[in-house]
Amino acid sequence: MSDRLIYLPLGGAGEIGMNAYVYGYGEPGRERLIVVDLGVTFGDMETTPGIDLIMADVAWLQANKDRIEAIFITHAHEDHVGALGLLWDRIGVPVHCRKFTGTLARMKMEERGLSPDAVRIHEPRPEVIEAGPFKVQFVPISHSIPESSALIIDTPAGRIVHSGDFKLDGTPVVGEPFDPIMWHEIARESGGVKVLTCDSTNVFSLHPGRSEALLANPLLDFVMAQPNMIAATTFASNIARLKSLAEAGAAAGRKICLLGRSMRRMTQVAQETGILTNFPATISPEEAANLPRNEVMLIVTGSQGERRAATAQLARGSYLGIRMKEGDSFLFSSSVIPGNERGVIRIMNQFSEIGVDVFDNNDGTFHVSGHANRPDLEAVHDLLKPQILIPMHGEHMHLREHALIGEKKGIASIVATNGNMVDITGDKPRIVDETDHGRIYLDGSVLIGAMDGVVRDRIRMALNGSALVSVIVDESDNPFPDAWVELMGLPEKGRSNTPVAQQIESELAEFLERADPKTVGDDQKLEEVVRKITRQVTMEEIGKKPEVTAIISRLAP
Amino acid sequence: MSDRLIYLPLGGAGEIGMNAYVYGYGEPGRERLIVVDLGVTFGDMETTPGIDLIMADVAWLQANKDRIEAIFITHAHEDHVGALGLLWDRIGVPVHCRKFTGTLARMKMEERGLSPDAVRIHEPRPEVIEAGPFKVQFVPISHSIPESSALIIDTPAGRIVHSGDFKLDGTPVVGEPFDPIMWHEIARESGGVKVLTCDSTNVFSLHPGRSEALLANPLLDFVMAQPNMIAATTFASNIARLKSLAEAGAAAGRKICLLGRSMRRMTQVAQETGILTNFPATISPEEAANLPRNEVMLIVTGSQGERRAATAQLARGSYLGIRMKEGDSFLFSSSVIPGNERGVIRIMNQFSEIGVDVFDNNDGTFHVSGHANRPDLEAVHDLLKPQILIPMHGEHMHLREHALIGEKKGIASIVATNGNMVDITGDKPRIVDETDHGRIYLDGSVLIGAMDGVVRDRIRMALNGSALVSVIVDESDNPFPDAWVELMGLPEKGRSNTPVAQQIESELAEFLERADPKTVGDDQKLEEVVRKITRQVTMEEIGKKPEVTAIISRLAP
Repeated sequence: MSDRLIYLPLGGAGEIGMNAYVYGYGEPGRERLIVVDLGVTFGDMETTPGIDLIMADVAWLQANKDRIEAIFITHAHEDHVGALGLLWDRIGVPVHCRKFTGTLARMKMEERGLSPDAVRIHEPRPEVIEAGPFKVQFVPISHSIPESSALIIDTPAGRIVHSGDFKLDGTPVVGEPFDPIMWHEIARESGGVKVLTCDSTNVFSLHPGRSEALLANPLLDFVMAQPNMIAATTFASNIARLKSLAEAGAAAGRKICLLGRSMRRMTQVAQETGILTNFPATISPEEAANLPRNEVMLIVTGSQGERRAATAQLARGSYLGIRMKEGDSFLFSSSVIPGNERGVIRIMNQFSEIGVDVFDNNDGTFHVSGHANRPDLEAVHDLLKPQILIPMHGEHMHLREHALIGEKKGIASIVATNGNMVDITGDKPRIVDETDHGRIYLDGSVLIGAMDGVVRDRIRMALNGSALVSVIVDESDNPFPDAWVELMGLPEKGRSNTPVAQQIESELAEFLERADPKTVGDDQKLEEVVRKITRQVTMEEIGKKPEVTAIISRLAP
Repeated sequence: MSDRLIYLPLGGAGEIGMNAYVYGYGEPGRERLIVVDLGVTFGDMETTPGIDLIMADVAWLQANKDRIEAIFITHAHEDHVGALGLLWDRIGVPVHCRKFTGTLARMKMEERGLSPDAVRIHEPRPEVIEAGPFKVQFVPISHSIPESSALIIDTPAGRIVHSGDFKLDGTPVVGEPFDPIMWHEIARESGGVKVLTCDSTNVFSLHPGRSEALLANPLLDFVMAQPNMIAATTFASNIARLKSLAEAGAAAGRKICLLGRSMRRMTQVAQETGILTNFPATISPEEAANLPRNEVMLIVTGSQGERRAATAQLARGSYLGIRMKEGDSFLFSSSVIPGNERGVIRIMNQFSEIGVDVFDNNDGTFHVSGHANRPDLEAVHDLLKPQILIPMHGEHMHLREHALIGEKKGIASIVATNGNMVDITGDKPRIVDETDHGRIYLDGSVLIGAMDGVVRDRIRMALNGSALVSVIVDESDNPFPDAWVELMGLPEKGRSNTPVAQQIESELAEFLERADPKTVGDDQKLEEVVRKITRQVTMEEIGKKPEVTAIISRLAP
């Protein structure tokens, strides 16, 4: 069989988050592979209670470990690099990054007890990294974090441009601007672009994207207009925004104080790697607490309403000795990721209760997105003229919309979601296989499979409550009639206004006194009846059927 | 002491939902009382897992039951009438409504086994309902449900206007338009308006509100443009919207099919009460399934992404034999209530997977709000010229913003949240007491207090998992060393790669073998140690501390 070029998303295609993409080249089934990005997504109470992080199941990669050449990380956002320290030992190949990304990636490795040496740091194009049949270049592109990169992946079957996350920003404040001349070159050399794998996040935004630099004046005007203490929040990794905010504060004569661990870590790495220069001097929280209120500007973590972040703590009262008061101002220099609305609104109301004036980005004044909008995506299609368009980094509706745009322009386009292996050797992409794919959860310190049932049981207990029944069977196989019942997460009393646990115990007693030896002798049968009685009584009393755990203890004869 | 006039919100002030307001007049502490609205709010997985409905705690009303004259319901939305059947027997006074609202209120009473006769039906102004010292009129006002009413509450201390939920719509399609001339009269008679208690929902919307009638043409254009089956969703209670949608469908030559129980109930009550006339003929789901796709328009429940509603079922596959297909169109003629975003997005992606084109209201073409925007609120302030403004029906930030607007106009304004008793006898409102207030949950068939701990335990089990330990102590007070451990919602194995439950059992055995009689003899002490050991092992193995329930069974000597 002749060699083929394949694309296989394991995460990020059909969702926004936990990006993990695979490219392969070679004999079918024996392609040499590279992995692009290994990110996480965050759990929520509704679908994944108690889960700390979610990442792509890399079982397919583990099964094909000997075929993997390398991992490339496009940029340091958690949804692109967050799983590296958690999954690297299942893959075990060199990790290629640029400097800022690589510095943070090395920290991720160390945090999980892995050697940072697996992470190798590279210069952008024209440096070429060889990985099996692939020749890869990092190409600077603008986004909402420094050093974000697209990848040029040259293969024997042609050139792939993997866009990474990007926007078209000629004046990004920090980091490299979008360079149309370079991209023009990229489109023309090496026989042009065969495949464009492209960010789809903002495909439904119809106006052209706006530059980070447009925020400087509105932010300065905002800061100048506030009479007392100011706090502003944005993503800690948005170094350009941190600089814009700090410069607005400094220009208005305020001292800048950074609050939140990730805020300090990100600025430190950005300064150490030479990306962030001329950042205004900062003061400590103690100094900030002791200055007159109108001389302080806080820049804080927690723009998505995260309960433990600095913003949430300030809204609840105080953080590191700093307390916001009536007449202070709080700015969300951010937009709300869908699903986080209630958390952000809760904080706005808490600030309202204190009397703090809250300003957000409802009218687009104080935030710009890091992703290309529809007209920008179309500009990139037109600039690169790819033969094939594969939308990525989007929920199904984003991928579908983006593919429809491509089709209308005459570009062969395909909606490929996690697990779809796409043959991109020919003129048109074809789905040739459906591989194992899924999700892995970080629960406490353990990685578990999404389908292991752990989360299912938690959701059931949360919705239905839980009943525990202990039954003791004596040495002669006779059950003690007084079973013990404990209820958790259930109303104490129901319809008959006596404790439900007591009601269950007396129903169980009635059964156990007359139970036939066959049932009593069989753990499974006995458990089944105990469960049934418990659920029946609870249903009658409170209209719910709880999760029941029955413990049968048999005394040794 | 001289008589006073008081306002006391028990629900709806500091939140959007579960409205319940109290007015009182008389000797302080002995005021005669009326209740305005008894609504519910809906739970969510994050804060109230498993809870069916949430309503205001009416303990204060129960404690003052002999002082209550009547309940008035402004309109039939669930957040205004939904708790009537659940809480009425705790209050036990006549319920006054207009016809459409009253018909639905009677159904609520019957559903809970109460007599519908407590609900009395009235004509709008000029009919006056006397309730102790209060003379009350229902005044038609436009909203997103028929017969929505403001209340004029005349008292010896002056006139109160309780706005209810409203917008200023002169062409509401169904029901009564906003009538500025009547409101002008209301502002002038009886010495003018002393207090305006006013809807605050849309205080942050800066453009003037738009009329329901504006949707007719865009909806017709939309329907005409769709090539195959169309389904559209909105709130079932929005009778005007149902009519606009159905008329657009009928005008385009389509047959109309209503899907969803509440959709059929609402249209039936609206037709029986004479509110809805000339509604296009509808067909059954079976007929719809058998017609050519381009001759059908479905109008369906579930605009907020509710998992069991018709929209969600169509998105998952089919509903009552009707299956949507590639090339069909689905319209959200609605906006998303904050907190419901992920549910709605999930449905959009499911439709995308089928190939159904989804249209929503992102650009305001297919939906108008039922609440007055900021310019409309200001128009009402100017028209009624109240001495006092009390913002209601809003989260804290809405109430605060609304009060600031009032203050700027020179109206004495106050932010009063649930439990704040406000003396409104004089020129300025004053908070004079903080009464008991809170929330009641409907859990299955039982009403429980929000602070009873039931939900707290469910959330803990959902986040941390649950461990059940059974320890048996023999007739001579010696514990059996082999305790039994069951884990629910926890990873099976952790750091040492052996079952966590086994690890706990062996640690417990080690303890029980050497436990001193004092600890073993004391249930509480023994439980405490068992809990501690269980949590320690689990923490070491999987980095989590579960909820532990220990059952100590003592064999009778």
